[in-house]
Amino acid sequence: MEQNAIQDLWPDIGTHCWGCGKNNAMGLQLKSYWEGDETVCTWQPKDYHKAWLGILCGGIIATLIDCHCTNTANAAAYRAEGREIGTEPLIGYATGSLFVKYLQPTPIDKPVVLRARVKEIQERKTTVSCSLYSGETECATGEVVAVRIV
Amino acid sequence: MEQNAIQDLWPDIGTHCWGCGKNNAMGLQLKSYWEGDETVCTWQPKDYHKAWLGILCGGIIATLIDCHCTNTANAAAYRAEGREIGTEPLIGYATGSLFVKYLQPTPIDKPVVLRARVKEIQERKTTVSCSLYSGETECATGEVVAVRIV
Repeated sequence: MEQNAIQDLWPDIGTHCWGCGKNNAMGLQLKSYWEGDETVCTWQPKDYHKAWLGILCGGIIATLIDCHCTNTANAAAYRAEGREIGTEPLIGYATGSLFVKYLQPTPIDKPVVLRARVKEIQERKTTVSCSLYSGETECATGEVVAVRIV
Repeated sequence: MEQNAIQDLWPDIGTHCWGCGKNNAMGLQLKSYWEGDETVCTWQPKDYHKAWLGILCGGIIATLIDCHCTNTANAAAYRAEGREIGTEPLIGYATGSLFVKYLQPTPIDKPVVLRARVKEIQERKTTVSCSLYSGETECATGEVVAVRIV
């Protein structure tokens, strides 16, 4: 059975985010999936997401890491309660802080793959670490502290 | 005499960045200006830059901080040499790392103002700190380590 993306399981009110909302036609619409204890997102840049000829914009990379990690924190909280994402009572996380380290220029002409893992879960804060790859090359790493707001 | 935006002084090859390039019609096209020892950027979000109803997306905030700070590092290097931005030999910086702390939800229906300041200039790395305001409210702070590549 095909797995739904984490972002596609939210109620409609939570699906308009420019980074990851399925109902934001102007946005990046990234999709994150569980793969064991990791979450994985594969995303194809468009040419206008460039920083420079052939190179993906750092702000787009930051957005991908932010949304992928915050969705991971949210999904992990549901998983800890043994519940389906989006079921009531709703669990919601927002980004408290975001750190991105750019290791290599990221080519824009092929998909990037993000892999994230929960590093620590506290009562109201979850820390998620992430790597962004182009092919076999790790182009950026990131860490998000997500804060529970609902 | 009106001051040119830092981004508008680059040669054409450097004006396609999704965050700040004047020749990227799909991008944010932010503009940064010197104001004494600070650089200032005022930018009006569009409705589709939301994270949630009425709230600006964290990835957009990260992009604004990234591009505003990296342009500041670049402009500061030209200023240190007493030269106009974009003059030969070209000076170029890329983002080495980006940190953003989200303090408050940022309203999407009015302009945000970013203020950045150079914290440290080393031979190949410049650290720039930044605050993002909505009206009088400081909604996010950030720090970029920009790396000289040209």
